[in-house]
Amino acid sequence: MQVFYAAQQALHAPDHIVVRGRVTPNLETPARAASLRDTVVALGHACAAPRDHGVGILQEVHDPDYLDFLASAAERWQRLPNAGPLVHAHAFPHPLHRRRPASIQGQVGYYLSGGSCPLSAGTWEAARWAANCALEAAEAALAGARETYALCRPPGHHAYADFAGGFCYLNNVAIAAQRMAKALGRVAILDIDVHHGNGTQGIFYERDDVHFVSVHGDPDHFFPFYAGYADETGVGRGAGYNRNFPLAARTGDREWLAAIAAGLSDIESSRPAALLVSLGFDAFAGDPSSDLAVGTEGFRAAGRLIGASRRPVVLVQEGGYVVEHLSTNLTAFLEGFFAARPESAPLAT
Amino acid sequence: MQVFYAAQQALHAPDHIVVRGRVTPNLETPARAASLRDTVVALGHACAAPRDHGVGILQEVHDPDYLDFLASAAERWQRLPNAGPLVHAHAFPHPLHRRRPASIQGQVGYYLSGGSCPLSAGTWEAARWAANCALEAAEAALAGARETYALCRPPGHHAYADFAGGFCYLNNVAIAAQRMAKALGRVAILDIDVHHGNGTQGIFYERDDVHFVSVHGDPDHFFPFYAGYADETGVGRGAGYNRNFPLAARTGDREWLAAIAAGLSDIESSRPAALLVSLGFDAFAGDPSSDLAVGTEGFRAAGRLIGASRRPVVLVQEGGYVVEHLSTNLTAFLEGFFAARPESAPLAT
Repeated sequence: MQVFYAAQQALHAPDHIVVRGRVTPNLETPARAASLRDTVVALGHACAAPRDHGVGILQEVHDPDYLDFLASAAERWQRLPNAGPLVHAHAFPHPLHRRRPASIQGQVGYYLSGGSCPLSAGTWEAARWAANCALEAAEAALAGARETYALCRPPGHHAYADFAGGFCYLNNVAIAAQRMAKALGRVAILDIDVHHGNGTQGIFYERDDVHFVSVHGDPDHFFPFYAGYADETGVGRGAGYNRNFPLAARTGDREWLAAIAAGLSDIESSRPAALLVSLGFDAFAGDPSSDLAVGTEGFRAAGRLIGASRRPVVLVQEGGYVVEHLSTNLTAFLEGFFAARPESAPLAT
Repeated sequence: MQVFYAAQQALHAPDHIVVRGRVTPNLETPARAASLRDTVVALGHACAAPRDHGVGILQEVHDPDYLDFLASAAERWQRLPNAGPLVHAHAFPHPLHRRRPASIQGQVGYYLSGGSCPLSAGTWEAARWAANCALEAAEAALAGARETYALCRPPGHHAYADFAGGFCYLNNVAIAAQRMAKALGRVAILDIDVHHGNGTQGIFYERDDVHFVSVHGDPDHFFPFYAGYADETGVGRGAGYNRNFPLAARTGDREWLAAIAAGLSDIESSRPAALLVSLGFDAFAGDPSSDLAVGTEGFRAAGRLIGASRRPVVLVQEGGYVVEHLSTNLTAFLEGFFAARPESAPLAT
């Protein structure tokens, strides 16, 4: 399997976030991606750096003004008196208002959704290269690869067209899906990160060419709180192409896998040309950010369910924050995945 | 002049806020109101405690679910594991979503606008009694008092119908204006706090019975960032009854007073039955939260401009954060105010 990873992704390394009014160490570290890369290399997969696909293609998913903000925020921030090393917002608009101030002071609360998406000097480059990994994986799939893995970091699925959130700045899986939908007509995204892929849902909510399914902790009590409910099924042309499976706290393997199976069945009904997976390992029982209680064998079984798809599969890395468990759970997932791959049958396109 | 102040207001005393990702001492302290109370008493004004006007009347301005949240949040918060002493939000919804989670974890980001409106155990009682001060002042005005002063704290003008912000939880001036507009037909609010009264604007934006005018630092670079622009003039029946005077950074007395005079002239055009004033002292050059450069003589002159109104005047305290200067600036304001009061002429009603 071709894996894509860029060294520039390590340029993003804010040391803290703000949670419940308290400064907290940031668990979304460069070591996460390094651990996953070492794991796939040890498993014998080829790991390559992506090409630079440029900024233009990002505008097919993201608002150009938002991209300008991400590219310039850290430098503009440093010109403020008493700026602090990280770009952090603290005042957010009432939904009555969607008006973009010209100043960096005002733009931070307009484009950042809270305390868990600070920007540092290297954030833009890192996020851009994470997106390049996703684009490279999409291109490889379009060129015929049956499975590819974009080892993205920072992750992406909480990023809307114009809004960063929960460690995410550019929506890697959405950028890859956009590229593939354009070429193939319709693709699907299955999101098994423990947090609802609210940004991905927001980007494709009115579209029928990217079918989005997410399995996650119930947002009623769990991040991202404001989207991910079962009754959110898409609007307009997108009606029926969004499906959420919110799960109760401490849900274990059995129900988690049943939801994934139901999600895959829903996806199959729209006959997408390819399957993209927002692959998080933070549903793991031992993950500090988890609301569920999935075990390593759960990830192996999830790999089997996903691997059984007759579609080309593009894996895009999202969350998972216990470095010492990431390798174990990725290994189990990939073992299940490759064991189930339909080797002899041609892949549907 | 009758002044209203409630001891319960001191029950709200969060020791810190979060600004730009950093924990920062909270300058919105009980000592502010105590200093202002001592000042008016020393000047010979009568200071009394308000009656308890209950929660029902607050629902005429605020969403009932928001009031329930304010009343219960601190207790519900304490039941969370690892809660921390203050209720703080850190994840906020994309404007695509206006969906209220049932859990306290989700409601905090739905109802709180950022890092400068934490709740502590005493916040609800304090905010309720600040609103009682405003209501008592409104009742006194309706009973014939030519001028009254509600010494409110926490302040109110950043609070929307369903959204706390910038030290504000209940919108005291809006609650008083609602009471008076109901009795008198139309009233006006002049807001001279250095920050735009975005909550007050939001509450009355579609109404013609409360004419709102605000003079403040330009939100393009200054809190509250997302409202307070000159082109926001009201909608529907409210069209023409909202007027903003954003001022450039470091604006001094002369232009500040010219904007206040223009605001009063705008107010006069709609012939309100009474004038309420959102009275902040944070436009003062020496205030750490100021974006302007108003001097003590500026406050004296503002007092003269406002005092010259032939309407009954209800002063409602908003911001001002340098305790050692509050007394000086309030004294100057009141000296100007009373010097200009049209003693011999009957007040218009």
